[in-house]
Amino acid sequence: MENLSDILHEAGKLMLSYQQPRVYAKGGHADFVTEADVAVQTLLMERLAARYPTAKFYAEEKKDNVLTDGLTFIIDPIDGTTNYFRKRSMSCISVGAVEHRRAVFGAIYNPYADEVYHAETGCGAYCGETRLHASEEPLENALIGLGTSPYYNELMALTGRTVGALLPLCGDLRRTGSAAQELCDIAAGRSDGCFEWLLQPWDYCAGTLLVEEAGGRCGNILGGEVTYEEGIPFMAAGSGCFDALRAALQAIYHQA
Amino acid sequence: MENLSDILHEAGKLMLSYQQPRVYAKGGHADFVTEADVAVQTLLMERLAARYPTAKFYAEEKKDNVLTDGLTFIIDPIDGTTNYFRKRSMSCISVGAVEHRRAVFGAIYNPYADEVYHAETGCGAYCGETRLHASEEPLENALIGLGTSPYYNELMALTGRTVGALLPLCGDLRRTGSAAQELCDIAAGRSDGCFEWLLQPWDYCAGTLLVEEAGGRCGNILGGEVTYEEGIPFMAAGSGCFDALRAALQAIYHQA
Repeated sequence: MENLSDILHEAGKLMLSYQQPRVYAKGGHADFVTEADVAVQTLLMERLAARYPTAKFYAEEKKDNVLTDGLTFIIDPIDGTTNYFRKRSMSCISVGAVEHRRAVFGAIYNPYADEVYHAETGCGAYCGETRLHASEEPLENALIGLGTSPYYNELMALTGRTVGALLPLCGDLRRTGSAAQELCDIAAGRSDGCFEWLLQPWDYCAGTLLVEEAGGRCGNILGGEVTYEEGIPFMAAGSGCFDALRAALQAIYHQA
Repeated sequence: MENLSDILHEAGKLMLSYQQPRVYAKGGHADFVTEADVAVQTLLMERLAARYPTAKFYAEEKKDNVLTDGLTFIIDPIDGTTNYFRKRSMSCISVGAVEHRRAVFGAIYNPYADEVYHAETGCGAYCGETRLHASEEPLENALIGLGTSPYYNELMALTGRTVGALLPLCGDLRRTGSAAQELCDIAAGRSDGCFEWLLQPWDYCAGTLLVEEAGGRCGNILGGEVTYEEGIPFMAAGSGCFDALRAALQAIYHQA
């Protein structure tokens, strides 16, 4: 699969063209969509459907997402919507492709830095032409991206408990507010891991392949591989801390 | 006081000139200094001493910091040292000036974005020539910058408890890893508040004046005004959520 950078650049230009995008509440706590999310998703689906006519779509601002065995694009038109309308310059366009329910391609475009991160199964991960390598830091020095599962009130106490228990075990936490950005950071060795107690496939699909092709690992926190049918407790990390981070998170979960 | 942007630009150029700065542990958990922090601090102190011969200095990489009533520059040569050596492009040079123990001037330079944020008492806060205005968001929608006090193991449980209790009350959390950057974000209306259970004067001195001159508020979480003699439980927020955020943090603290 080509790296789709022409489509991503066109989508990024559209995304940045809104000065004051209209914002709508989606119902959950702190869950928003803007007119730009919808417009970017429409553009991506039109361009990809023209190039891959048999492909299916599974996307954040689309209803009735069902994963089949066919080639499916899993799309987050703007990952980091709140960052986007608060003008924090920290949001990405994330396009993954899954076939037989396994990721085969992923691309994440950061339109602020004009950087395309892309990976194809077995071919390595890249930012533009530069090959990416995840870190091998042990957990005690690791910089871990914190996901707060902000739309799910029932997970907030668990998230707080995780922060308190994890801080003494790792180097420190970061929270960008864009899971796709955090997965790019892990793939590029700028951080060492991330977790979120409930994350959706459009948030992690492209980034999972990036991290794995950069030598890192991704998984369901509670065990097993990453799957794309529905949201999961998601984690990713460099090889130096993945096992220790998963063990720590599982212990925190079962401690309730 | 002039905005010192010539000195800040010179310091930023020096900061970005290191490709792989040597990193040294300072003793505390996750507490690091690089050769660049030391070099940038030396340059700032030399340039400022030449221009303000009677000024004193209170700076992160300097021993025996004592605040007197005289004009004192409070300096963090690189706020966000871990971000700096992990190449996260999220670190600032922070220079505040205090006289009679009150902030009279503050400037924060982000060399990645080449932006100078500056404020002088009674004259407003600016990014370059653009006047800044803090938000008036209520706490329920507020984006709050999380400080983890990473060097102080004894505060980690409190920080975790704060995250769990605050998530349902606010919009969401962010953690940039640079307090100076978070104070610029509040002054510019890109976020609505921040807190850290123990923060040092060099981290917040310049940013406090920026937030206040942008119409926001800063304080000691446990009560009273910001002081500069030593580290304090620090918070800042827009006028729409300051009181509610302080009340929530105090309740969490006393709940132990």
